Amino acid sequence: MDPGNGSDVLPEELTASVESFFDTAPPLQGSSLISHKLQAFIDRNSKSSEGGGPVRVVCVTSGGTTVPLEQRCVRYIDNFSSGHRGAASTEYFVKAGYAVIFLHRRGSCQPYCRYLPEDSFLDFFELGEDSSIQVCQSHSTIVKKAIGDYQNAVERGQLLKLPFTTIFEYLQVLRMVAISMRPLGSYGMFYLAAAVSDFYVPWESMAKHKIQSSSGPLDMRLSQVPKMLSMLRKEWAPMAFCISFKLETDGNILLQKADMAMKKYHMHVVVANLLATYKREVIVVTDNGCINVCSQDEYSDVEEEMIKILVDRHSKYLE
Amino acid sequence: MDPGNGSDVLPEELTASVESFFDTAPPLQGSSLISHKLQAFIDRNSKSSEGGGPVRVVCVTSGGTTVPLEQRCVRYIDNFSSGHRGAASTEYFVKAGYAVIFLHRRGSCQPYCRYLPEDSFLDFFELGEDSSIQVCQSHSTIVKKAIGDYQNAVERGQLLKLPFTTIFEYLQVLRMVAISMRPLGSYGMFYLAAAVSDFYVPWESMAKHKIQSSSGPLDMRLSQVPKMLSMLRKEWAPMAFCISFKLETDGNILLQKADMAMKKYHMHVVVANLLATYKREVIVVTDNGCINVCSQDEYSDVEEEMIKILVDRHSKYLE
Repeated sequence: MDPGNGSDVLPEELTASVESFFDTAPPLQGSSLISHKLQAFIDRNSKSSEGGGPVRVVCVTSGGTTVPLEQRCVRYIDNFSSGHRGAASTEYFVKAGYAVIFLHRRGSCQPYCRYLPEDSFLDFFELGEDSSIQVCQSHSTIVKKAIGDYQNAVERGQLLKLPFTTIFEYLQVLRMVAISMRPLGSYGMFYLAAAVSDFYVPWESMAKHKIQSSSGPLDMRLSQVPKMLSMLRKEWAPMAFCISFKLETDGNILLQKADMAMKKYHMHVVVANLLATYKREVIVVTDNGCINVCSQDEYSDVEEEMIKILVDRHSKYLE
Repeated sequence: MDPGNGSDVLPEELTASVESFFDTAPPLQGSSLISHKLQAFIDRNSKSSEGGGPVRVVCVTSGGTTVPLEQRCVRYIDNFSSGHRGAASTEYFVKAGYAVIFLHRRGSCQPYCRYLPEDSFLDFFELGEDSSIQVCQSHSTIVKKAIGDYQNAVERGQLLKLPFTTIFEYLQVLRMVAISMRPLGSYGMFYLAAAVSDFYVPWESMAKHKIQSSSGPLDMRLSQVPKMLSMLRKEWAPMAFCISFKLETDGNILLQKADMAMKKYHMHVVVANLLATYKREVIVVTDNGCINVCSQDEYSDVEEEMIKILVDRHSKYLE
């Protein structure tokens, strides 16, 4: 087992920029409720499972973060991500027996809802003659399966959903989750599929009011978001099994970038994917080689096979 | 009736920047299907209504537009808007007998769905013992009302939904809608509640690939979006009754900004609102004064009274 490089020292510059990020971030709304929910979830799942050892817990991050450009936010920069990957992966982790903390962008794709209509789910339902609600015949099977599977996951206490919108919320909640998961040691896993902004506008240097459009072109300078993966690995939850994602548009630099991320942030696995093919193709990059995973056809999920591989890697890590 | 200032000449500079915007925009996906749907909707609704005259048709725009920062889009700038105003207003326009073209941001709030859960509508439903789908008792009434009202609007042919995401899609579809509505003359109305970007990155000067984060802070220069309200009023649909919105965060400049917009773009009405209070308070600005509209309590919509005033104004305009 990799002790997590917990002994390495973080560069002072990074520690300072991380501190400054959290110190100047707007306060997290509802943080005591989040903390309470988290603690209850971890407590329930850190007791021995039926099979013997403690339950494995994975934090799945999903969807894109926003970067506000104004303090009273009208405009913001957003990162593209439907959240489909995180939602699908959550379902397969639940199926594999994991308890899942689903840290997701508000309004992004939700587990068990992937095949349901997004904009106008009213089209799925009809009012019967006795004014009872009926599901259109054509969709009856998938809607019933969705409701059933979701209810099961919730009743078994295997699913905790925590939402975020901005980069400030995301990183504050991620830190809370990681610190709560620290006692789980190597039974904890981070599956960091969210599309996190690389750049942001520090809260203090942000425009207070809506930027006016009357005065010609707009020039903006964005700062780099401190690399929190290092904090996660070295400080917040050093024993947890960590998987990060690398999305690129240019195939020529993809594997090189994935490899760099793995070394730089001491990830156990990096999942590399290209924007053009990410739905059906990923490369699982580990320290002893790469595994290509493709979905069999348009009706199967690439996440199914990928999660099997990751669960297997996690088992080996636990040994 | 105001002849729409159709005789005024557009400044050459504006015409040139509008032409350049459309010429360099990425081609609109599915434009022939949109055009077909629009034509069928206008044809059906331009026939005489039961009461005599033609049906009034309103184009309600709703939600925020995005501005891509990369051609293979990973990052974009977004404008804050839940789309709640546009969705609520659509319901009241339908109630008042209008046919509504609901031009909305994908994933934003939809008419008749406002009281339904956003993220996890699975929580509303239960599987009965015979595995039939049931609505939780507590939400049964509002879900039934939503499905019933929505079905009525669709069956009467009073609702056409057209989605957009980027500023390029929004302005291309708006132009198509406006030109299709031109034959309706003054029976047409535009209710421009969408939060449209003031700035954009011209497609040709946009980064082809994902902007890399390794090289320090990010500097960006955004160009102004040409003022399309002038095109709408003078070229696309000069006889239509036009209402635009002004959202500000600073109360000190709100009415002045609304007044400027009215004069500059020859709007018939400008609805002014502040970010802090827009859900319950608006000011309807017309050429003979302002009307303050507030919602009675937290259970009533400010849109109900506002749409009454606007329908009344439209009637006077038709006389």
